[in-house]
Amino acid sequence: MRLHPRTQAAKESIFPKMSALARELGAVNLGQGFPTNPPPPFLLEAVGRALGRYDQYAPPAGLPPLREALAEEFGVVTEAVVVTSGATEALYVLLQSLVGPGEEVVVLEPFFDVYLPDAFLAGGEARLVRLHLTPEGFRLDLAALERALTPRTRVLLLNAPMNPTGLVFREEELRAVAELARRHGLFLISDEVYDELYFGERPRRLREFAPERTFTVGSAGKRLEATGYRVGWIVGPPEFMPTLAGMRQWTSFSAPTPLQAGVAEALRVARGEGYYEALRQSYKRRRDLLAEGLKALGLRVFLPEGTYFLMAELPGLDAFWLVREARVALIPAAAFYLQDPPKDLFRFAFCKTEEELSLALDRLSRVVNSPRET
Amino acid sequence: MRLHPRTQAAKESIFPKMSALARELGAVNLGQGFPTNPPPPFLLEAVGRALGRYDQYAPPAGLPPLREALAEEFGVVTEAVVVTSGATEALYVLLQSLVGPGEEVVVLEPFFDVYLPDAFLAGGEARLVRLHLTPEGFRLDLAALERALTPRTRVLLLNAPMNPTGLVFREEELRAVAELARRHGLFLISDEVYDELYFGERPRRLREFAPERTFTVGSAGKRLEATGYRVGWIVGPPEFMPTLAGMRQWTSFSAPTPLQAGVAEALRVARGEGYYEALRQSYKRRRDLLAEGLKALGLRVFLPEGTYFLMAELPGLDAFWLVREARVALIPAAAFYLQDPPKDLFRFAFCKTEEELSLALDRLSRVVNSPRET
Ligand SMILES: Cc1ncc(COP(=O)(O)O)c(C=O)c1O
Ligand SMILES: Cc1ncc(COP(=O)(O)O)c(C=O)c1O
Repeated sequence: MRLHPRTQAAKESIFPKMSALARELGAVNLGQGFPTNPPPPFLLEAVGRALGRYDQYAPPAGLPPLREALAEEFGVVTEAVVVTSGATEALYVLLQSLVGPGEEVVVLEPFFDVYLPDAFLAGGEARLVRLHLTPEGFRLDLAALERALTPRTRVLLLNAPMNPTGLVFREEELRAVAELARRHGLFLISDEVYDELYFGERPRRLREFAPERTFTVGSAGKRLEATGYRVGWIVGPPEFMPTLAGMRQWTSFSAPTPLQAGVAEALRVARGEGYYEALRQSYKRRRDLLAEGLKALGLRVFLPEGTYFLMAELPGLDAFWLVREARVALIPAAAFYLQDPPKDLFRFAFCKTEEELSLALDRLSRVVNSPRET
Repeated sequence: MRLHPRTQAAKESIFPKMSALARELGAVNLGQGFPTNPPPPFLLEAVGRALGRYDQYAPPAGLPPLREALAEEFGVVTEAVVVTSGATEALYVLLQSLVGPGEEVVVLEPFFDVYLPDAFLAGGEARLVRLHLTPEGFRLDLAALERALTPRTRVLLLNAPMNPTGLVFREEELRAVAELARRHGLFLISDEVYDELYFGERPRRLREFAPERTFTVGSAGKRLEATGYRVGWIVGPPEFMPTLAGMRQWTSFSAPTPLQAGVAEALRVARGEGYYEALRQSYKRRRDLLAEGLKALGLRVFLPEGTYFLMAELPGLDAFWLVREARVALIPAAAFYLQDPPKDLFRFAFCKTEEELSLALDRLSRVVNSPRET
């Protein structure tokens, strides 16, 4: 008796593994992307009020008040919104629904880890287009993107603000991607779970340039600092959404009802009370603390324009050695590349307290430039 | 641009559709299986206490206290337990992990609706074995079960207490199924979401007879009257469980953390405080109220030995006519059969209040035996 070969996709991802190691070894966890701070009180209170009132199955497409709150915010009809069990389920269901055997998805590299197994489990193949890494940072190569297309390409999958690079695409880039997709008859998936986490101008959304073919993926977990609540969404062309709702009913039937009810209320409060501005300011402070600290250690830092991740080089160091010896958990670039990751590159999550960031810097200062014993 | 043909599986299921119709038309909803009563206070309080403390990602295999509570109850090691986003995700992930193109799953008919799309989405095929419907009720035909096996069969999927029939299998039947699976090298999936809802002796679990090949599926939603909390589980052979956890991380990453924490606590309280006994008594009362009421109308009733469903005949009536004209929402047997459902058979959910059941009986009394206008 053996499991089906598709369970190759089941390999343990490095994110929970590093978190477990960090806990075990008392390391500062700048690895997995979950905040140290609790969610805002207005979310906790809204969920508390939902308990005992919103306890039974929600419709697979989502609890009506949540769909309505999202529709209002995105300026679309309610039918354009489907709620999912986190952005993870949104991405899984989209790839199952758009891609099959012999078909291809173009994915930018470095990539968020789920895209590859999602493509594989749909029977499709991911074609990777690597970002250029220049001393000024990561850059999208539009010509390479176009060269990656084949007659079997069905989907272009973008992520912005981008994990792990912190990249935000310019309006001209979004326009060019939309144009490319239109010319080749492709669907677009735009993973925008960090849509409220940017440090410059508010980024435009890909869907503005190709609403007829773009599925925007979002996550309450990221916006409201509650990654464990498993409430995500897809906003897309209304004619496809009943089918997506029909598909997601088989993966988890519906997202957790009291958390949907709480998020519905909290999204309105967040918008109304300037919560996202405050969140951005607080993250900008932590980004700068971390970046300045790393630069002071003589390290090369790639400053992110969004997300709560920062990439930096730690020459000659290894992630497993770091968590054990320096007691700082980081994610090595290899986790975001299929092969040949840029040397010495690590992802730092700064959705942690300033104390944790300072402690990590302090611990790193002892191992950086003091070549480790081998 | 078209969606992938596997999205055929996405057809809207009758359960949420009937619920929506019932709401719209002011019908008593004895259709979809969710309780009218709120979850027990000890669950609501435990979840309330978890908010602000258990808000971030849980490990994909489940929050440790929940895995431990379940391991203790099932008498297995913690590694034998994987937590899922409801039993729905457990079943989906199991079929993806056990079955592939060209392979078969044997399923009893009438079936809970997700089994067929789950098999289809895994690329496999469901072979149906119909229960005999005698005047005494539904009966498993072991010889037919054996005849349904082919060299391509990978899994036998059973559900007990069984939705929609209310059937509970005898020890000899479970033994025979286990023996059959052993002889043919098959996996067993035992959907036991109604494990605490039985009206006679406590049913044995299929896994007792074949622990090396059985995956038991359970649901906090059913046990604790909170179908919207999306906390389910798989208990199975420890060597396969890391792979199942690795697969379920791609569908929804992890089940909702505060609800897992609340359920972990509530499962212990439920066991300690005789909650399940009280629940069974209260359901038995409602089952009998409904069954007696239907019999008094001269209808044929198949008394369930478990679950909160009852099958009964309403000669000459149609489910859509009933919800509109009698304003009682029921699920027609056709929802549980691929073709040729038994004539006149309906599923009644009695996880509703006694008032609702009485109102439904009253409304039905006006349309039963008074042939409808056409
Ligand atoms: C780019 C990206 N997409 C999707 C997700 C998954 O989000 P969720 O927690 O809502 O499933 C993450 C989580 O880290 C992410 O970084
Ligand atoms: C037999 C059976 N299995 C599984 C489920 C799904 O359970 P959950 O709500 O935990 O996903 C149901 C729900 O009605 C059911 O009746």
